[in-house]
Amino acid sequence: MSAPAARSKPACRVALIGFGTVGRAVTKILCETVLGEHGDGSLRLTHICNRNVERKKQAWTASHVANSVPNNVPGDVIWTNDYHAVLDSDADVVIELIGGLSPAGEIVGGALRAGKSVVTANKQLIARHGPDLLQLAASKGVRLEFGASVAGGVPVLPALRTGLNGDRLHGIAGILNGTCNYILSRIEGARIPFSEALEEAQSRGFAEADASEDLDGGDARAKLAILALAGLHAYVEPESIRARTIRTVEAVDFDYARELGCTIRQISRADLKQDPQPSSTPPGFATAGRPRRPSPHLHLSSQNTLFAEVGPSLVPVASPFGRVQSNQNLVLTSGQYGGDVAFLGAGAGGDPTAVAVISDLMLVAQDLARGKSGKPVATGVSTLLSPETSCDFETPWYLRFLVRDRPGIVAGLAHILSAHQLNIDAVLQNPGFDKAALPFVITLEPCRDSQLRPALEEMSALDFAIRPCLCLPILR
Amino acid sequence: MSAPAARSKPACRVALIGFGTVGRAVTKILCETVLGEHGDGSLRLTHICNRNVERKKQAWTASHVANSVPNNVPGDVIWTNDYHAVLDSDADVVIELIGGLSPAGEIVGGALRAGKSVVTANKQLIARHGPDLLQLAASKGVRLEFGASVAGGVPVLPALRTGLNGDRLHGIAGILNGTCNYILSRIEGARIPFSEALEEAQSRGFAEADASEDLDGGDARAKLAILALAGLHAYVEPESIRARTIRTVEAVDFDYARELGCTIRQISRADLKQDPQPSSTPPGFATAGRPRRPSPHLHLSSQNTLFAEVGPSLVPVASPFGRVQSNQNLVLTSGQYGGDVAFLGAGAGGDPTAVAVISDLMLVAQDLARGKSGKPVATGVSTLLSPETSCDFETPWYLRFLVRDRPGIVAGLAHILSAHQLNIDAVLQNPGFDKAALPFVITLEPCRDSQLRPALEEMSALDFAIRPCLCLPILR
Repeated sequence: MSAPAARSKPACRVALIGFGTVGRAVTKILCETVLGEHGDGSLRLTHICNRNVERKKQAWTASHVANSVPNNVPGDVIWTNDYHAVLDSDADVVIELIGGLSPAGEIVGGALRAGKSVVTANKQLIARHGPDLLQLAASKGVRLEFGASVAGGVPVLPALRTGLNGDRLHGIAGILNGTCNYILSRIEGARIPFSEALEEAQSRGFAEADASEDLDGGDARAKLAILALAGLHAYVEPESIRARTIRTVEAVDFDYARELGCTIRQISRADLKQDPQPSSTPPGFATAGRPRRPSPHLHLSSQNTLFAEVGPSLVPVASPFGRVQSNQNLVLTSGQYGGDVAFLGAGAGGDPTAVAVISDLMLVAQDLARGKSGKPVATGVSTLLSPETSCDFETPWYLRFLVRDRPGIVAGLAHILSAHQLNIDAVLQNPGFDKAALPFVITLEPCRDSQLRPALEEMSALDFAIRPCLCLPILR
Repeated sequence: MSAPAARSKPACRVALIGFGTVGRAVTKILCETVLGEHGDGSLRLTHICNRNVERKKQAWTASHVANSVPNNVPGDVIWTNDYHAVLDSDADVVIELIGGLSPAGEIVGGALRAGKSVVTANKQLIARHGPDLLQLAASKGVRLEFGASVAGGVPVLPALRTGLNGDRLHGIAGILNGTCNYILSRIEGARIPFSEALEEAQSRGFAEADASEDLDGGDARAKLAILALAGLHAYVEPESIRARTIRTVEAVDFDYARELGCTIRQISRADLKQDPQPSSTPPGFATAGRPRRPSPHLHLSSQNTLFAEVGPSLVPVASPFGRVQSNQNLVLTSGQYGGDVAFLGAGAGGDPTAVAVISDLMLVAQDLARGKSGKPVATGVSTLLSPETSCDFETPWYLRFLVRDRPGIVAGLAHILSAHQLNIDAVLQNPGFDKAALPFVITLEPCRDSQLRPALEEMSALDFAIRPCLCLPILR
């Protein structure tokens, strides 16, 4: 246990850039717990920076007046539109909460180059540039913390660095996107079409007007890339991870899934298969500080493969994944020595995400209180693997067809499957559907994705299909 | 992300005291991952210390020969019976894995006084003397880590210090004892008597010959005290926490519990009720390093109450607690800002516990690699609360009676309950039992423990009871 040795020390000076939902929650909690009369003086908020900051400040003040809540933001905090002023200031730590790649990348890079530690919740930035930025931080002897970038208030990233650091993890799986989880839960619970569930999510603030990043898996795969970086010490471009959309899932799929003891969730998963002679020292004892991509020195092995994918999947109703409620996130890690560990909690929201930000801030402040060494710190990025990415998982499969019914359909499909050496496990066809648009299901025994694709292509050429077959992995 | 900056640095010298199940697992994993040819030289194992160490060494060597596994323990490791030799050595870190209060207390205290950091899995020692030992470590500028002391491979203690440090937690609950969980699961699954389930657990190595510490809650309440220390920043003597035994739970209780949608588990729980004007700065920003008990300076408030208890409880079958499998541990934390977070994993066993030990070792080694400051480090113990302990939870209750049946029993009990203003929620009496030893159940609407006790006493005086009423809280 450790904490900043303050009072005798000068306060740690903290600047906040980004005053949206999370930024406001961070400010609120800081003011309620460690700033001003509640604090011990070990921390000082110096800047709040945002575009149109005057408008933001007025709204903040007005909402405090309206709710009769004291506004505890210290009077000497500088409210500014200009992040350059923050980078040029004497702030010790910059909290970056604006998200996206630009200007967040310039802000984080600029702060690190200026010798400031950075705390960020920016998943896109870390997923893409994490190793470079960690290397930059290391070279400057400062810290870059991003515990809030995945799964909001679920402390899985901190745990990967502390309590699980002694294990050799080989797999990570999770429900990482609350919007998808909400929509799939609503389709399941209310048996409504996808479009209606999406509209409802949008009207209730659970989905953005353009929810593509969420629905089509872009958000989750950035998070998965970060989990692979922190837990599997494997760096892959998020775009190299296959993402399947949830837009094609319909209410009838939950009926058929239920017959298989399953429900449907957006699952993100990564399994690292290392070559028999691992080229790296184990994770936690990584030594120097070279980033993966810019450096030609890294000991890479192309025989490492990261099996990774994001998309709707069948999971047993009784499994931890099947029980995750609407806005919760679940992450399951699998280790060689410690086995499986599950983390469950609020995946998003201002306050839970702010807890992750402030927890990171505390670690940085503790470090600063112990005295800046100025010496480069090691980052663990030197021994990053740079595996091939593959989505060629071997699993059982759920294939749902929507057809104009006529005799011989199942026979035709079975013929194609058989020709591709694929074994049918079950055929499910519930009564009561319109023959002109009949949904039915074939499940397959475990086979590789790559074995299945040619058969799917052949089947898609058959003339009775109204829509392409929906093909989902069944995770046991 | 950070890791020890090694190669140029001298190796961190590690001595292991205690070569039992966990000690051997730590040695195995260290040898497989960071020592010798697998490592980068940043870590060196200097001592293995145990009573009868020669016999231990021979058994270790023999088992490696028998299994045709290479014995990777470096040849220059000193095997010794004498822990004083370790304390007098130049080891930087001592891993204490012998457990119990003595001589473990002398070892941990001696190592800290000698300026060595300590990693321990010793729950009894930390539960009783944690604040003092943390203070001692702080005064010497070294670290005391105990992440393995609760819930084995479940990284809840590390998460409390990192990702949840920014929250204000008010509650912690968990299934913390694998032996109890195994026995209760077996009574439930096989409908066998308690004594038979215990014998089975003992013969399978899941329970010790004298399993009192497990069955009667001593083990779990020590762990609960540590969780309260780390998560709620509240120090209480473990003995002040009420522990109820699981020995009184019978197969029939699972039948009745199931009718209520519940099962029965040994639950440990602590809820902190703070006075409206908290006397402490928030957890993570604790400053100086004064321990609670020896110091009169601490700002205590007797208005803080830690509601805490360990014992068999009804939990919904569909709740996270109801689904915990035999040797798993589950910990649920509740925070003011981040809400509930659940951690689930292997609660015991050599390898998972060793992962926790080695993870702590890595943190200490990283710290050492950054250079010993020699300066006192803050511990966060200064702002520990010293609450009153209470078991006066308000919950619904399950009362199971075992009676010689005759008319008027329910009427008599109902009369007493009514006289004490206690509301009956349900009366359950399944058919098929011997009238001479008839189990039946009354459930009560929520009331405080202290309201219920006088009624229980009065009921125990009635002449039809064969055994005292089994009284379990129902947790929703």
